[in-house]
Amino acid sequence: MKLLFIILDGVGDRPSLELDGKTPLEYANTPNLDVLAKQGLTGIMDVISPGVTPGSDTAHLALFGVDPFKYYTGRGPFEAAGVGLQIKEGDVAFRVNFATLENGIITDRRAGRIKERTYDLVESLKGMEFEGVEVIVADGTEHRAATILRGEGLSDKVKGNDPKIEGKEPYAFKALDNSPEGQKTVRVLNAFTNKAHDILQQSEINKEREEKGLVPANYLLIRGAGKVPKLPNFEKEYGLKTVCVAGGGLYKGVARMLGMDIIEKHELTGGVDTNLQIKFETAYEMLKNYSFVFTHVKGTDNLGHDGDAKGKAEFIEKIDKELSRFLPENYKDKLVIAVCGDHSTPCSFKDHSADPVPVMITSSDCLKDEVQSFGERACYKGGLGRILGKNLMGILLNELRLVEKFGA
Amino acid sequence: MKLLFIILDGVGDRPSLELDGKTPLEYANTPNLDVLAKQGLTGIMDVISPGVTPGSDTAHLALFGVDPFKYYTGRGPFEAAGVGLQIKEGDVAFRVNFATLENGIITDRRAGRIKERTYDLVESLKGMEFEGVEVIVADGTEHRAATILRGEGLSDKVKGNDPKIEGKEPYAFKALDNSPEGQKTVRVLNAFTNKAHDILQQSEINKEREEKGLVPANYLLIRGAGKVPKLPNFEKEYGLKTVCVAGGGLYKGVARMLGMDIIEKHELTGGVDTNLQIKFETAYEMLKNYSFVFTHVKGTDNLGHDGDAKGKAEFIEKIDKELSRFLPENYKDKLVIAVCGDHSTPCSFKDHSADPVPVMITSSDCLKDEVQSFGERACYKGGLGRILGKNLMGILLNELRLVEKFGA
Repeated sequence: MKLLFIILDGVGDRPSLELDGKTPLEYANTPNLDVLAKQGLTGIMDVISPGVTPGSDTAHLALFGVDPFKYYTGRGPFEAAGVGLQIKEGDVAFRVNFATLENGIITDRRAGRIKERTYDLVESLKGMEFEGVEVIVADGTEHRAATILRGEGLSDKVKGNDPKIEGKEPYAFKALDNSPEGQKTVRVLNAFTNKAHDILQQSEINKEREEKGLVPANYLLIRGAGKVPKLPNFEKEYGLKTVCVAGGGLYKGVARMLGMDIIEKHELTGGVDTNLQIKFETAYEMLKNYSFVFTHVKGTDNLGHDGDAKGKAEFIEKIDKELSRFLPENYKDKLVIAVCGDHSTPCSFKDHSADPVPVMITSSDCLKDEVQSFGERACYKGGLGRILGKNLMGILLNELRLVEKFGA
Repeated sequence: MKLLFIILDGVGDRPSLELDGKTPLEYANTPNLDVLAKQGLTGIMDVISPGVTPGSDTAHLALFGVDPFKYYTGRGPFEAAGVGLQIKEGDVAFRVNFATLENGIITDRRAGRIKERTYDLVESLKGMEFEGVEVIVADGTEHRAATILRGEGLSDKVKGNDPKIEGKEPYAFKALDNSPEGQKTVRVLNAFTNKAHDILQQSEINKEREEKGLVPANYLLIRGAGKVPKLPNFEKEYGLKTVCVAGGGLYKGVARMLGMDIIEKHELTGGVDTNLQIKFETAYEMLKNYSFVFTHVKGTDNLGHDGDAKGKAEFIEKIDKELSRFLPENYKDKLVIAVCGDHSTPCSFKDHSADPVPVMITSSDCLKDEVQSFGERACYKGGLGRILGKNLMGILLNELRLVEKFGA
């Protein structure tokens, strides 16, 4: 028996006047999700705990059965793993944005959401070393990159230089404790950021951008410090051959650090412009060789952050279209399908919230409930009740008949 | 955005034959609570844990997000703080009843629920010291008072002298362990109780009471020993400017110990005779300057203890009348309203029970569910499902958009 695990990032939402008092998920016309709901078991889920707002990183750890309170050190390591860097225990990793600095002020935190030639920009930053600490860099999607500091005497108790809003100077890197490791890490980050700024200022790529009227990617905003944690191996833990079909670096990073195989396709952008058809065709193909296919869709979250309720509903309809191939009447082999959010991103918040997410599990002989559609308020009446994210893996393994008895 | 947090003490109940098989809350005509339910998100809540019967003190700690298993040392400190005593770390505090002792037997545990001149009675007991331990006293509402022992070598592991039922001798104070601190505390309590009895016997106030045919307040029942714990500061913890509108000393005590501001008005009695109009008018006024207004109503609990289902329903109707000023159609600013019990006090139990309490949260864009009225059995069909008291603060902070992400 195989499992298709679909996480719709930030799908949970709140009623919107624009949508006749419905949420985007309730408003969207989703015949395929609704078939899965009719034949499945539904509920709502606090991914971390009721009243706790999950980050995307901690949420995914919890959903994969890995306790974020124990293993989460910061976002950096997942971003670094997501862009393909080979991280090692002891490394301190960071997420990086290409940004635009003008007269000492950050005028664009994402350098105009630069997409082209960040690979070449990153190439120009390679090979630096300060105080015996190697600085490793890799580019991610759009303006995103990641960096690793590798060497002795480093700390992840450091605050990054991202002021979070535009029109401000970059923050000074700051050690959060008085340790010599913290001081050294700050010195290395300063040296790297300054040298990177010099190189990027001179870069032909940026000169060409400016000629085209585009803002230069001439500065690095570095944040999310984390020592690389040693995570359990998902495949060994659960005995499941697992693959990740995702666009966003973070999700590939979590998957890689848990030992999952990763599908890399440039059509999967981790944005609203991702190719959903290729995403779900790929997932379909992967089910032939893997017993657990983690499929991640990021666009729902982006549209929540943008406060675009209509757009979110439309994007959900596009996702729904791709799901018909997995419906029990179309899919011949035994398949368990789980669909949920990793957190809510209500359009009225334009950010994550602590609202629980809808969750649904459909298998051939599950205890299907009376819920007829997949939505926040349909699902709270479901047979799963209100569950915790950390319990989901056990519930899924139970559907796969892979659980061991506690006791005899 | 502001929060009005209304706790209806002991509101949860069970079906009553007198009320056509309904609970007092279900039976009462409550158009305003029902509007809030229709526009809100409802559920049931185990304030401590399913199957655990909360005390009023532990319940309120849990509802304010303070773990009673970690912080609760006994009721005394809250009663003492509630009557305005300045408590210090290391103090051992007790709740006190004025009682009536005749021929060595407690004939009235509340001295006829004495209301008048307890201030003067308490004055006559001030300034005592035994074995270097200062005895501090203050009067509370009706027959209630509180006392603090302040000095070296004291213990809160002592059993009080309250036999809990009338027609018995007072219990002997008893140390619960063999420590010298326990022995010393018992000696001080004995000396204080005996001397107080002598003074109260001679009191002109009691002579006048007896002339009027009232029982004398000539004895102190002392219980609820607790060392003063250091509680988190609510305002600092959550960044909310908070005020407490309550009559009962315990609730003001909990609030004061958490660093909330306290409104003192003699019309707020903490009983069935409280002035509900002044209570809710005050809450309304307080919402202008505070972002979190904790409003406590005690009468529901008293009527549960009395087993008076009809009276409880009528009192709930009186509360309901005062709520129209907060309804979304009447209240202009952004307001989140939460209403719940701290525990159930079923009229058939005449005491607290472990039954979960109804809870409802109404805000402008909450995921309102299909529940049409505020009642025990209406709310279990609500969108919140069954939650724990310790999670409520997080859920409320989420409505106020004040939560920080765990992760990124």
